[in-house]
Amino acid sequence: MAENDSLSQFLTVAIDAAKQAGELIRKGFYQTKHVEHKGSVDLVTETDKACEDLIFNHLKQHFPSHKFVGEETTAADGVSELTNEPTWIVDPIDGTINFVHGFPFVCVSIGLTIKKVPVVGVVYNPIMNELFTAIDGNGAFLNGDPIKVSSKSELVTCLLMTEDIPKRDKATLDAVTNRINSLLYKVRSIRMGGSCALGLCGIACGRIDLFYLSGFGGPWDVAAGAVIVKEAGGVIFDPSGNDFDITAQRVAASNPLVKDAFVDALQQSA
Amino acid sequence: MAENDSLSQFLTVAIDAAKQAGELIRKGFYQTKHVEHKGSVDLVTETDKACEDLIFNHLKQHFPSHKFVGEETTAADGVSELTNEPTWIVDPIDGTINFVHGFPFVCVSIGLTIKKVPVVGVVYNPIMNELFTAIDGNGAFLNGDPIKVSSKSELVTCLLMTEDIPKRDKATLDAVTNRINSLLYKVRSIRMGGSCALGLCGIACGRIDLFYLSGFGGPWDVAAGAVIVKEAGGVIFDPSGNDFDITAQRVAASNPLVKDAFVDALQQSA
Repeated sequence: MAENDSLSQFLTVAIDAAKQAGELIRKGFYQTKHVEHKGSVDLVTETDKACEDLIFNHLKQHFPSHKFVGEETTAADGVSELTNEPTWIVDPIDGTINFVHGFPFVCVSIGLTIKKVPVVGVVYNPIMNELFTAIDGNGAFLNGDPIKVSSKSELVTCLLMTEDIPKRDKATLDAVTNRINSLLYKVRSIRMGGSCALGLCGIACGRIDLFYLSGFGGPWDVAAGAVIVKEAGGVIFDPSGNDFDITAQRVAASNPLVKDAFVDALQQSA
Repeated sequence: MAENDSLSQFLTVAIDAAKQAGELIRKGFYQTKHVEHKGSVDLVTETDKACEDLIFNHLKQHFPSHKFVGEETTAADGVSELTNEPTWIVDPIDGTINFVHGFPFVCVSIGLTIKKVPVVGVVYNPIMNELFTAIDGNGAFLNGDPIKVSSKSELVTCLLMTEDIPKRDKATLDAVTNRINSLLYKVRSIRMGGSCALGLCGIACGRIDLFYLSGFGGPWDVAAGAVIVKEAGGVIFDPSGNDFDITAQRVAASNPLVKDAFVDALQQSA
């Protein structure tokens, strides 16, 4: 009970931080943006930096002893090692390309790990006004209403989501499109939305049935989504079928009924 | 002026029809749906049929001498020939798979052609509450505010959208993914949203920069979007670079600055 009370407190503070960052995102989304390049397709905006500062400052004020891992900080400083300490893992804007283009799938992603396990997750899309939340053991919610994964049990009725990644070498691109080709024979249709965290939340609320992505930026893309999927009754795993590793930059998720068929299809498509 | 007055009247009636159908879609979207199969990935719902009846009845009441082409009617009766008469071309739910799965990219699409040219367009997404409208010569609007296409002039900064199609034979799937593979070398990123009409509206409001699709259902997927793109300052054309043909089941759209480079890239990817 004491632990759940503190998880609940962590969630409340994380929601505050996400909502405040969401205000900055909403303002920037409808303005002309001043964009810097960080590689050919990876964009960082002033809003991204401002949001990370805001979120870290807000969390540090409440939880000064906690550790912090953020996309902007980590990309600048080198990868931080994840420890057993309570650690906030933050993507201030997931879907940065969408943000820059005005495509409405953008979100703040704030996850907390304890002993390397995600236990609190907040994903907030301020453009569509959708707030996904979960704490370990207490279910998952969209704008306060309980959500659960879909009940599809056959691949042929499933909606699949994945994404391209910034790398543009031939081996990477061939791997991406060959896998899509192989999977399209087996599923109903494919969507690509441009946000890993919202892809995981799509699984959690049953809008999509299958999600996978390899080669994304880091644990900030999946930390919050992992607990939201799990608390919505879903499963999160490595595309190989092995256990999910938050530091591996590979993720897959589905409902439990279709997981084995999905893993088989992923293995056949590798 | 007299003609613009009547186009304006046509638009007003079409918006009424779209909003009424949107109410049915919104209700169905949040309920368990009773779905029939029409091929392995093509779904028709009761809502789809109810929306087409509602829209046709509303339009016929106001314009009894006009012609009508609708996805449901035409699919059942065989393809109607498009004549020079004023003809309403209607997709009651574009993004049927999204509707069935609860994925929020669904819309009503209502276009009017006169002498086979689209002159009135209404695309309404009742889940995200986005109403795209245009009449020939008077600009394009999103919820009443003027919209325009993006100003990107180089493919490498462009966000591309396309879709898979229901066919699952090897030649079709290879063509789909080979084209994506070829284009991904040249553009920033790809999105697949599951609605042709909303893809065209994405071009019109500058959320995406490049859109193409081959093998979609019929003119109801593009009639409204074509006039919305054009009135937002965009260009709509055949993926070969030839003139757009509303009956050809092939479409591409972009801003004018990037069109030639996009056509070259599409030709190299064919």
